[in-house]
Amino acid sequence: MRVVLACYLMLCALHVTAQNKPTSIIYVIGDGMGMEYLTAYRHFQDDPTTAALESTWFDRYLVGTASTHPDDVTQVTDSAASATALAAGIKTYNGAIGVDSQGREVETLLERAKKRGYQTAMVATSQINHATPASFAAHIDSRQKYDEIADQYLERRYQGKPWVDILLGGGKQYFERDDRHLVDEFKALGYQYAGDFAGLDTLTRAPALALLADRGLPFAIDEPPADRLRVLTRKALELLEADKPFFLLVEASQIDWCGHANDIACAMREMADAEVALQAIEDYVGQHPQTLVVVTADHSTGGLTMGAEGEYVWRAEVVRGIKASANTLAAALVAQKPWYATWQSITGIELTNETKERFSRRLDEVHSAETEAVKNTAITALRAQVLAQIDRASATGWTTSGHTGGDVAVMALGAGAQAFAGQQDNTELARKLFAVIGE
Amino acid sequence: MRVVLACYLMLCALHVTAQNKPTSIIYVIGDGMGMEYLTAYRHFQDDPTTAALESTWFDRYLVGTASTHPDDVTQVTDSAASATALAAGIKTYNGAIGVDSQGREVETLLERAKKRGYQTAMVATSQINHATPASFAAHIDSRQKYDEIADQYLERRYQGKPWVDILLGGGKQYFERDDRHLVDEFKALGYQYAGDFAGLDTLTRAPALALLADRGLPFAIDEPPADRLRVLTRKALELLEADKPFFLLVEASQIDWCGHANDIACAMREMADAEVALQAIEDYVGQHPQTLVVVTADHSTGGLTMGAEGEYVWRAEVVRGIKASANTLAAALVAQKPWYATWQSITGIELTNETKERFSRRLDEVHSAETEAVKNTAITALRAQVLAQIDRASATGWTTSGHTGGDVAVMALGAGAQAFAGQQDNTELARKLFAVIGE
Repeated sequence: MRVVLACYLMLCALHVTAQNKPTSIIYVIGDGMGMEYLTAYRHFQDDPTTAALESTWFDRYLVGTASTHPDDVTQVTDSAASATALAAGIKTYNGAIGVDSQGREVETLLERAKKRGYQTAMVATSQINHATPASFAAHIDSRQKYDEIADQYLERRYQGKPWVDILLGGGKQYFERDDRHLVDEFKALGYQYAGDFAGLDTLTRAPALALLADRGLPFAIDEPPADRLRVLTRKALELLEADKPFFLLVEASQIDWCGHANDIACAMREMADAEVALQAIEDYVGQHPQTLVVVTADHSTGGLTMGAEGEYVWRAEVVRGIKASANTLAAALVAQKPWYATWQSITGIELTNETKERFSRRLDEVHSAETEAVKNTAITALRAQVLAQIDRASATGWTTSGHTGGDVAVMALGAGAQAFAGQQDNTELARKLFAVIGE
Repeated sequence: MRVVLACYLMLCALHVTAQNKPTSIIYVIGDGMGMEYLTAYRHFQDDPTTAALESTWFDRYLVGTASTHPDDVTQVTDSAASATALAAGIKTYNGAIGVDSQGREVETLLERAKKRGYQTAMVATSQINHATPASFAAHIDSRQKYDEIADQYLERRYQGKPWVDILLGGGKQYFERDDRHLVDEFKALGYQYAGDFAGLDTLTRAPALALLADRGLPFAIDEPPADRLRVLTRKALELLEADKPFFLLVEASQIDWCGHANDIACAMREMADAEVALQAIEDYVGQHPQTLVVVTADHSTGGLTMGAEGEYVWRAEVVRGIKASANTLAAALVAQKPWYATWQSITGIELTNETKERFSRRLDEVHSAETEAVKNTAITALRAQVLAQIDRASATGWTTSGHTGGDVAVMALGAGAQAFAGQQDNTELARKLFAVIGE
């Protein structure tokens, strides 16, 4: 017998830390970013001029998976219940924002971090008071209460409760209301404020607030270059002081929205937007090793599959060629006659004569509509036709306009990343992060 | 500054090995066992009398994921190309059995192992000459050449090429043909033979052959208890000599077949069949630590999703209540009048009056059919109606009768399991296993 000591050195970590400097946390949630999205994105971003299928950021840092069901295990989660699980480590009901099944407030990672002296920040491409960020910094029975959630971001500060130092995202209409002008109140508390991307340069220190759209930001595919999440994430990292620990939540919010629309090209551009933000985060961690990055999804959306209806193929090149969301594309077809040149320039997809006739008939319905309601119904049907053609051309499948129940991926890097390896429940991700922050 | 040496002890391994005893390998392939199947199975096997959602064998040993595309990255793989990737570490075309894109033979793990003095064994619930096992022990341009694949299993032995010592599965019709009686030829070479499950007891040493059905074994759901893969796996482990290393391929073949049928209850029972086999393998590894177990899938099938058509739910209890495959269920409905009591006793699902009428009309078509062809068409339509009701009742979604392109899970335990962590290509799994076997 002989004894072989095989210690996998790549999995051991030599941490050189400044004394008493706790680990900063960057928690990234790809809303709706199910497992199939990660594979599809690998094909989408592949360089077709090389034989290899290039790996993605997600591939390089995948360490495990997470289950996502809400408190009722027969249900498929919504973004509120899953964000509360990821934020507070407890199962709750669909719609719940930072409260448990009995409606009681639960402490979130962001709040615990603030109590422990961390700086706190949230970045999203949705309105900043949407379900996912809301579940980290507000406590209310329904995700629909957008105004009250925005109010809480401000008022918890008055109440001496843990607050968020940096808020960057959309949602202006909830912060500049007729009944209350929260932006002015934030300014009165010392927050610097930016109302558009150009204004981000004027943010030079925390606390800071940026509201860059009335609700969510435009889809990445509709406003290239698709790097808005990177811009916001870098700004947050710039405003956070490097000598103090921080908790930063980053949400790639609109993967989910494209998924609900069953719009594959839209979803892939949101993934690209997320990936470049993650590359920026990786660069930051390279400079600041006492940082832990955990990336996951709250659930999958749409029931996306590569391949559909018996076809053993997924044509990433078709998806790559599409230059607008189905919303924008349908509007462009309505706006421009003859429509087919517009279709081809935006999608690159050839249509059969039969399909062209169906599009023409639908466009005639739109143009001849005598009421706005009839017109909108026709546009909705047109959008469905557009998406059906894209799905057929690319062999993309969907099963639902809602969410699906499968486990999602977990990626991690930096200090303590290996603790997130293997299959786990989404509540365990939060519990492991609570352990990093400490009591 | 202080230096903290944080070595994750759980990820380091102290291997105590008998000198010169190489690592035995058990390679388990769940055919068609995509990511969503693993989550669905967790819900399927959950004990509903407890609040917790019990974890599965797959959950406990998940370490990573694998991509599955064939040589043409735009295609979705079939089982032959992916099995050749898993067996030989190379990308090839759909349909290829142990040959590369130019049709050249490629060395498989099983063959390398045999050359290095390993015992070799293959277990499957399909015919043993089906694409997955075939890709480990045969070399031919098309998976459809079942007879030639069976011939090769025998003839490679005559040719002095690496062979398989133990073959347990289905496929009798390919080994007892009018033109050639391979079973007799195997016996002449010293193989013990069993033609049914009762006969397995007469197998007492290698080499051995068991062919337990003409083609694939019956679906697990149609012949409970669902433990046929465990029975076969235990038999293989019993016949393998413990003091010599071995390479054992185990395929849970019919997860894929249920997936092609879009039959969720069928698929979940095949998962259960796989899980109990894996538990038996885990027990074996507990007694024989110098064993490495790697478990993966070759691809996903059917585009399964938990939740469909806007419903935020997946009713595992409906799936649990179904006691037959759609094939068997449709046949039972045809055989028995009145049919509704049969439907209820097999599925536990209540139908609306409207749906009952549709079933009755379809059954009338079957009973009044004047030719076999018309009758079969009506039965096929009946089966589709059956599955549609099961999907609706359980909120199960599907996008295809074929395969889908998403990455699959990788589970590993035993000696060297950590080498399989993270995201990797399916060819890398083979390359890592070649490294275990050595040159």
